[in-house]
Amino acid sequence: MIEIKPVAFVENLRTFPKDDHWGDVISEIKLAEGIHPDALKGIEEFSHLDIIFYFHQVKEEHIQYKARRPRNNKNYPETGIFAQRGKNRPNRLGATVVTLLEKSGSKLVVKGLDAIDGTPVIDIKPVMKEFLPKGQIIQPKWSEDLMKVYWHAAD
Amino acid sequence: MIEIKPVAFVENLRTFPKDDHWGDVISEIKLAEGIHPDALKGIEEFSHLDIIFYFHQVKEEHIQYKARRPRNNKNYPETGIFAQRGKNRPNRLGATVVTLLEKSGSKLVVKGLDAIDGTPVIDIKPVMKEFLPKGQIIQPKWSEDLMKVYWHAAD
Repeated sequence: MIEIKPVAFVENLRTFPKDDHWGDVISEIKLAEGIHPDALKGIEEFSHLDIIFYFHQVKEEHIQYKARRPRNNKNYPETGIFAQRGKNRPNRLGATVVTLLEKSGSKLVVKGLDAIDGTPVIDIKPVMKEFLPKGQIIQPKWSEDLMKVYWHAAD
Repeated sequence: MIEIKPVAFVENLRTFPKDDHWGDVISEIKLAEGIHPDALKGIEEFSHLDIIFYFHQVKEEHIQYKARRPRNNKNYPETGIFAQRGKNRPNRLGATVVTLLEKSGSKLVVKGLDAIDGTPVIDIKPVMKEFLPKGQIIQPKWSEDLMKVYWHAAD
């Protein structure tokens, strides 16, 4: 068993989980009590960050351990939970690249974080181009369909 | 406190931590006992995976909580641990995009995983192009210098 402590928390106006329309959500990431602001020193020199977070509202009985159709859509194939990015996954971990808009003391303002208000953040890493995928990205059709309005502005 | 369980383990020929030369390391990711192979169903339709793992050999006394020069290189500026990707970080989490070479039962063969033999994996996610960084990646010069031979083949 591995023990993890939140290093920061998300603050935004999205108070309940929603599948789509994350495109215009601006979030603040505030360092947790006890985490020194120096941990963010120089982060403003990066345009993008990897945020690793914990889907804290997912209940044990909803976690998928095997395969299911993404979003229970009958047009999508039975797919293993590790071949999806859905939240109902073992360990409840989310990982998203965000755009860093501003740093102020122990607070980051970011765009493109698909996490609700109150979400614990467990790591913050700068995006370096050397860590981006090498070669062409290939992915199944269902995933492109599922992502169609994910980043669109809210209805 | 958040409790996390390994979902898989890394097997490769890199038995000690090394800063650079990860380019030709091929790794197997084997699902942990109790994790059903169906959790990987359909994953072979993706070319790339996000692997989140735990730097299990990092000792508490080596964890950086504030800022330091990356790799203690005096040519690099004092940088917060969350503005670096080094392993000596709170929560000891690594996150790397790998190329999926092969899936076989409860085993994945991947290229480009910068984790040593025995490393616990705590999540596996498919890379979707819709989750890649939007816009131009900006990063400081020191990070480009540091990454120069990171992915080169071993000496």
